[in-house]
Amino acid sequence: MARTKEFDRAQVLHKAMLLFWEKGYDGTSMADLLETMGISRSSMYETFTDKHSLYLEAAQLYRRTSQEKRKFLLEAESAKEGIRQYFERHIDGSFREDTPMGCLVTNTIVNVDSPGDEINVLMRAHFDELRVAFLELLRRGQESGEIAADRNVEDLAYMLLTINHGINVAAKLNNSRERAESMIEMVLGML
Amino acid sequence: MARTKEFDRAQVLHKAMLLFWEKGYDGTSMADLLETMGISRSSMYETFTDKHSLYLEAAQLYRRTSQEKRKFLLEAESAKEGIRQYFERHIDGSFREDTPMGCLVTNTIVNVDSPGDEINVLMRAHFDELRVAFLELLRRGQESGEIAADRNVEDLAYMLLTINHGINVAAKLNNSRERAESMIEMVLGML
Repeated sequence: MARTKEFDRAQVLHKAMLLFWEKGYDGTSMADLLETMGISRSSMYETFTDKHSLYLEAAQLYRRTSQEKRKFLLEAESAKEGIRQYFERHIDGSFREDTPMGCLVTNTIVNVDSPGDEINVLMRAHFDELRVAFLELLRRGQESGEIAADRNVEDLAYMLLTINHGINVAAKLNNSRERAESMIEMVLGML
Repeated sequence: MARTKEFDRAQVLHKAMLLFWEKGYDGTSMADLLETMGISRSSMYETFTDKHSLYLEAAQLYRRTSQEKRKFLLEAESAKEGIRQYFERHIDGSFREDTPMGCLVTNTIVNVDSPGDEINVLMRAHFDELRVAFLELLRRGQESGEIAADRNVEDLAYMLLTINHGINVAAKLNNSRERAESMIEMVLGML
């Protein structure tokens, strides 16, 4: 019984994640969630406490996917190659048609205004980890001579993070992914 | 009587715009709107038809503000100076504390998934105008020798647009505006 419940839990959490991703936190009603997850209101509250807790779990699940993408930065031998591979995966994930457009985190964050809120704290941690991963890779690139010594790597890391956010917004606008790919190649040439 | 109604209309529309800006389209309920606008449900429907039409009007109002910002690009004598002034205003608008964080358009777009929808069409037009303004200014900069002749100005314009989106997301994360300003100075040095 416990095993069955565990299995269902992962499955319904995945469904909830896709719905939050598509509609954002505020845009997802409890009625939508129950229909998509295919569970009763009482099971929902028993298993996930409330919408806010469910969202936090869904965001953690989504984050694990993002962490795989960040491996390209953490494990890269060449700074430019690592950044290229990261953005290839990022653009691929943002523009792919079998999942909602954009990024679950960006889709939510623009509707979250309370900075002390747990969701906002999670978002900030998520993006700060990404900024630091860019920064450390750029530093390694500067040490190896791949990145020009006079570049300010703090500014460069922040620029890559800002471009990362912007690609998620562009994907929601159904802009062409070729444009995003072409831009990244140009940026790599500027580093 | 007609004059009074016109005056009220502009005022309540402005209030609705601020609310949509803060909470996004889906996050703004009709009850929130009526409370903020201080009008009855029947006046709301009589004057603005429905939430969707009201949102479109609010977005048009917001756009007029953005168009003022774009003047810095359209009327610039120097490409880099025009881009600097544009982003100064953009960062100022995104991070200022007396209006909601980020951008009404970005805040909404990430929750709009239907590409044929009128709202999405409006958003795409809004950002395409901005991209073209960057592109034309960069072209003028290339002609005057201010921008290196071998730069691909299409890619550069798309990069500036992506950074523009990304700054709105960063502002929602309550990142420091100094970082955004410092990044723009670095980007100007790279053009």
